[in-house]
Amino acid sequence: MSDRPAAPDRPGAPTEGAAAGGFGGRLRSAFDRHGQLCVGIDPHSFLLADWGLADSADGAREFGLRVVDAAVGTVGIVKPQVAFFERYGAAGFGALESVLAAARAAGLLVIADAKRGDLGTSVEAYGQAWLTPGSPLEADALTISAYMGVGSIERPMRLAEETGKGLFVLAATSNPEALAVQTATLVVGARAGKSVAASIVEDVGEWNAAQAGRKNATDGTPATGDGESTGTESTGTASTEGVTIGSIGLVLGATVDFGAFGIDLAVGEPATPILAPGFGHQGARFGDLGALYGPSAPFAVVSASRSILRAGPDRIAEAIRAQAGEVFACRA
Amino acid sequence: MSDRPAAPDRPGAPTEGAAAGGFGGRLRSAFDRHGQLCVGIDPHSFLLADWGLADSADGAREFGLRVVDAAVGTVGIVKPQVAFFERYGAAGFGALESVLAAARAAGLLVIADAKRGDLGTSVEAYGQAWLTPGSPLEADALTISAYMGVGSIERPMRLAEETGKGLFVLAATSNPEALAVQTATLVVGARAGKSVAASIVEDVGEWNAAQAGRKNATDGTPATGDGESTGTESTGTASTEGVTIGSIGLVLGATVDFGAFGIDLAVGEPATPILAPGFGHQGARFGDLGALYGPSAPFAVVSASRSILRAGPDRIAEAIRAQAGEVFACRA
Repeated sequence: MSDRPAAPDRPGAPTEGAAAGGFGGRLRSAFDRHGQLCVGIDPHSFLLADWGLADSADGAREFGLRVVDAAVGTVGIVKPQVAFFERYGAAGFGALESVLAAARAAGLLVIADAKRGDLGTSVEAYGQAWLTPGSPLEADALTISAYMGVGSIERPMRLAEETGKGLFVLAATSNPEALAVQTATLVVGARAGKSVAASIVEDVGEWNAAQAGRKNATDGTPATGDGESTGTESTGTASTEGVTIGSIGLVLGATVDFGAFGIDLAVGEPATPILAPGFGHQGARFGDLGALYGPSAPFAVVSASRSILRAGPDRIAEAIRAQAGEVFACRA
Repeated sequence: MSDRPAAPDRPGAPTEGAAAGGFGGRLRSAFDRHGQLCVGIDPHSFLLADWGLADSADGAREFGLRVVDAAVGTVGIVKPQVAFFERYGAAGFGALESVLAAARAAGLLVIADAKRGDLGTSVEAYGQAWLTPGSPLEADALTISAYMGVGSIERPMRLAEETGKGLFVLAATSNPEALAVQTATLVVGARAGKSVAASIVEDVGEWNAAQAGRKNATDGTPATGDGESTGTESTGTASTEGVTIGSIGLVLGATVDFGAFGIDLAVGEPATPILAPGFGHQGARFGDLGALYGPSAPFAVVSASRSILRAGPDRIAEAIRAQAGEVFACRA
């Protein structure tokens, strides 16, 4: 067995990812061209059956490639749910590699929804798996858990900055069972008195601000891992019409009452990007985007999966167009 | 590419896992035969280099198989760190499948240290990936994160009970950056006033007790997924000399001051098994096992990785024997 991924199963559009100035810059570019909708790639067993595909790695690959085809040109961002591929073991990861490669080759920004997390060299290895240019599972960003503290994920945070990639750290999630843990009050450390979720929001905001400061201080020095770097826009951030987006984002579910968590949605410098699940099947409505996320609404990746995917293979392109238009219409 | 794993690369000793009566029973059996040491299988780049192996999926496979060979007959439990395999993408998972299969075929209990976590059907898919008999990545137990609440992982908890598998839920980990999140005080829910870590400890203890109660109530009914079932010992628990061990365990690091977290280490009925990292390289000493874990010490899987693996391929068997003996000597 080769240690390297096979080439994507189909020729893609020209690659544009790495040259566009870090994850924040690519996210800004995707928002500007296509709006904020992100299409989930979730090969549930029941969806594979509905689509007439086998509940197998090959079925999941075909499913993912069809979603990518339907997404290209209409949205800028896709989010494969890794768990559904992992069910098939190595073969499932082979399928995922095909989907990731096809999506990135077509110019889609890919958020691998893997919710990894660990500490030390182990979490560093997860970062390497998903955020290293040329690695078999290369994505543009990865979802990650900081149950062991935001400090525990510093190595992948640093790697993301170096490679022009992104992370979305779980903060306040959309499931009710999360409330007790995520609203718990810190009693030690610099954020004592804040909720767990708010402390993560602040840690990430502070990280992004520090990175921007560091880059401004070294303006003109070429950034690591980006041959096309252009000063302050080179790695984690990019500015368009005065708005800069950081590399490290947050997962903040659309069904969450942020006030109850003590979370401040004010926009920092740079802005912290938000991965916003909870729309469609889980109950939140696109029309509430502004009300839900306030000043941070323009930086939210609006994620929908089941409400799109259940349209089936023949109508998915239409469903994506309709929902992308709805989200676009809600833009501030 | 096939959707099924290849057969293990080498013939193993007779399979004994599934017949022994659920995860708790198999854990008890491993403890009784070989003591409490668990050998980590962590193919770091630097260790692969030290061992004269390539930093590739093939190198990681060979590394893992050699550790398994050295472990068989001396210890009962191994713990592959999934992150180091994931670096190589699908090929890395192919290597991991070989290592998992070889270890299980040789009668070792395998804890997949993957620290997965999600909610709903996604976390259910992670459970299916690692805890379903016959799945390519089948292990005996999986480490899991409950940042989204213990309620968020109920589906894999239920699956573990049904398939005779185990989970270890992150509670209080061995890294200092974890302290603020894990000692935060719950302000809502039934565990208000407890720390995040203590609430997880109590949720898991309550789960195990409820499962034992449910099984006692249906005593004599054959358990799901276990043809060899024998009454109350059939799925999650097993009793040896009056001591019963549950299916759902906790990760409680050996460098943690449990008092500071408000964690009660009293043994419930059944006992909650503990995955105890932090020995060796991270600083805890085997001789302190009893002092660290108190009454729960006999239920701790004492995990060591780097301190064993750095012995190199020619001396690892000797290192495992020496450390297993040390741990055995510390047994209460």
